[in-house]
Amino acid sequence: MENFTAFNPTTLHFGNNILPTLGITLKQYGNRVLLVYGKGSVKKSGLYDRIMNGLKMEGFEVCEYGGIKSNPVIEDVDAAAAIGRQHNVDVILAVGGGSVIDSSKIIAVTIPVQNPGWDFFTGKATASKAIPLVAVLTLAATGTEMNPFAVVSNHALGQKSAFGSPLTFPKHSFLDPGLTLTVPRDYTAFGIADLVAHCFEAWFGIGEPTLTDRFVISIVKEAMEYGPKLLGDLTNYEYRAKIMFAATMALNGMTMYGRSTGDWGVHSAGHCLSLLYDVPHGASLTIVYPAWMRHFKPQMGKRISQLGTALFDEPLSADQSIDRIEAFFKSLGCPVRLSEMNIPDTSKQNLLESMIHSKVSGGHVKMKEEDYRELIGLYF
Amino acid sequence: MENFTAFNPTTLHFGNNILPTLGITLKQYGNRVLLVYGKGSVKKSGLYDRIMNGLKMEGFEVCEYGGIKSNPVIEDVDAAAAIGRQHNVDVILAVGGGSVIDSSKIIAVTIPVQNPGWDFFTGKATASKAIPLVAVLTLAATGTEMNPFAVVSNHALGQKSAFGSPLTFPKHSFLDPGLTLTVPRDYTAFGIADLVAHCFEAWFGIGEPTLTDRFVISIVKEAMEYGPKLLGDLTNYEYRAKIMFAATMALNGMTMYGRSTGDWGVHSAGHCLSLLYDVPHGASLTIVYPAWMRHFKPQMGKRISQLGTALFDEPLSADQSIDRIEAFFKSLGCPVRLSEMNIPDTSKQNLLESMIHSKVSGGHVKMKEEDYRELIGLYF
Repeated sequence: MENFTAFNPTTLHFGNNILPTLGITLKQYGNRVLLVYGKGSVKKSGLYDRIMNGLKMEGFEVCEYGGIKSNPVIEDVDAAAAIGRQHNVDVILAVGGGSVIDSSKIIAVTIPVQNPGWDFFTGKATASKAIPLVAVLTLAATGTEMNPFAVVSNHALGQKSAFGSPLTFPKHSFLDPGLTLTVPRDYTAFGIADLVAHCFEAWFGIGEPTLTDRFVISIVKEAMEYGPKLLGDLTNYEYRAKIMFAATMALNGMTMYGRSTGDWGVHSAGHCLSLLYDVPHGASLTIVYPAWMRHFKPQMGKRISQLGTALFDEPLSADQSIDRIEAFFKSLGCPVRLSEMNIPDTSKQNLLESMIHSKVSGGHVKMKEEDYRELIGLYF
Repeated sequence: MENFTAFNPTTLHFGNNILPTLGITLKQYGNRVLLVYGKGSVKKSGLYDRIMNGLKMEGFEVCEYGGIKSNPVIEDVDAAAAIGRQHNVDVILAVGGGSVIDSSKIIAVTIPVQNPGWDFFTGKATASKAIPLVAVLTLAATGTEMNPFAVVSNHALGQKSAFGSPLTFPKHSFLDPGLTLTVPRDYTAFGIADLVAHCFEAWFGIGEPTLTDRFVISIVKEAMEYGPKLLGDLTNYEYRAKIMFAATMALNGMTMYGRSTGDWGVHSAGHCLSLLYDVPHGASLTIVYPAWMRHFKPQMGKRISQLGTALFDEPLSADQSIDRIEAFFKSLGCPVRLSEMNIPDTSKQNLLESMIHSKVSGGHVKMKEEDYRELIGLYF
């Protein structure tokens, strides 16, 4: 087992009808709230009104920034931070999915400084202070609700990058599976794929701690059992709860205990698909993972075979494991080839340039330009 | 899944040779340290000298309280708190196993007040302030290093009780499996039994969240695989690491996600054996658990059968499951009957009175006097 440090200060409130305590939670940080949300679904669902009315009734001063995009961009972060700074907010309330919460983490560290938000991604700025962040999650997928990480795109630079610091954990996250009942089928499936891919990134990292490996298999098996059931019954609270809980556990640190690093090469390559073609994050992962495993079978074959064997409870070769995992992604309705996305103008050359520009690699398996070419070939 | 709140602010430092950062960690809380330890093993192993010399070299002012008993008593808590109060300490450093860390949690909340420590157990005092606690763990067993709970005995009252508050989490816990290499065979086995029993207390609680159940099974399977290997090779660092990690995960809250309560009736009954006959905690559990499962089979049969089936990877009835679990405890060298402890003067009547006096019950299965009688009968 590798040495590790475990630290996760987020308080998770999980279950049915938990929002009534949101006000008490916010109040401990102050009275001025910056409400951050996305492009309309929280308004359509009525959640925006419910929360805004609640906050006003409880006497909070609320300013707001709506319109965070589903692949979030740095311009929104800076615009929201400016509003928060202007109103001298005490706390940020992020209501939405991964994009809203990720953006809010960077907003939280940008408000107290003069730097643009992107400076945190480049290392020009260091997070030394953050506005407390409270999250209400509406999409089970990224795990951002219980970790410090944020992924944001900078289209001017053609980059999609990650940042995290001990200061960017949400202080509290409210997870009511009932708030995810209206998530459409495709994004429900992408969320399931995302949580599975997070487990895989840990699995293919450095260090094979047996108990943590058991946890990883537990989470993926849960997704394999209840993901399909949920997709067949989208308004089932219990299935929503199982997937929401699994998504949080998949990236709250516990899959990394006893490892020195995860791999994350697949995420890194997937980000290029999102940047170039706005491919939803979860869909980018179900396209890249089978390709990555096929390409890196010479280095990772044993580990791939162990994964398949543990997931499907029968001895499987690496090839069989990859086929079965790909079939699982397909069964969710997720694309496993870029061609399935019906993007009019995909270009292998553009993809290659994007991967070179983004220095796509991995924590365990280092990728080089020849790997990019072969990987891209396997996308189609 | 039941609603739940997850919160665990302890920073866990796990691995080989991690103590060099202990000083930096303590320094953030101040310069005056109360060092708390047990009855000699840390002196014999040289750990006391190593830590004391390190603290002095780094300029800490250290006062100390040694001699915490392996079933810790409230008198030691009060005596240590008096020393800490007198020296106006900034931080407590607990070096030892569960008894030392449990005692230190109560010392931490007792120092700032005028009450005796037992007042926290009776509700006469409420924890509203605590001296920060940093722990160095030397025994893999109780999980206290990453939870807020403390169990202490009051022999004057004939009670062994539990207390916990959000203030009694250790701030930091240092887990170097190398520090457990000298733990003798019997206490190594009791530690393995203790962590397994913690998992069972969660399993038999209220709520059967499928993913959390998978985590529970993962932890117990890890103990079943590596416990016997460790007992056959006590100085193997990697096996020590696996068991130490499993013990922490068994009671850091994750086995309770999605449950409204654990059961803990077996612990409660086991405490009476410790109180009356100083039976080591882990040994009390391996005696009581088989008896408890046999007695409560009518109510818990399905759940017992599910447990055995999941642990042994084959369909097992409740009876078969109990037999297999009992055989596992025996294979560790743990007692499964009180008679094996060679206590000269066990008395069923005294045991019954102790259980009545301690109001032994359970969070899920409520025990009454007729249950006590039958349970005690099964101890022999």
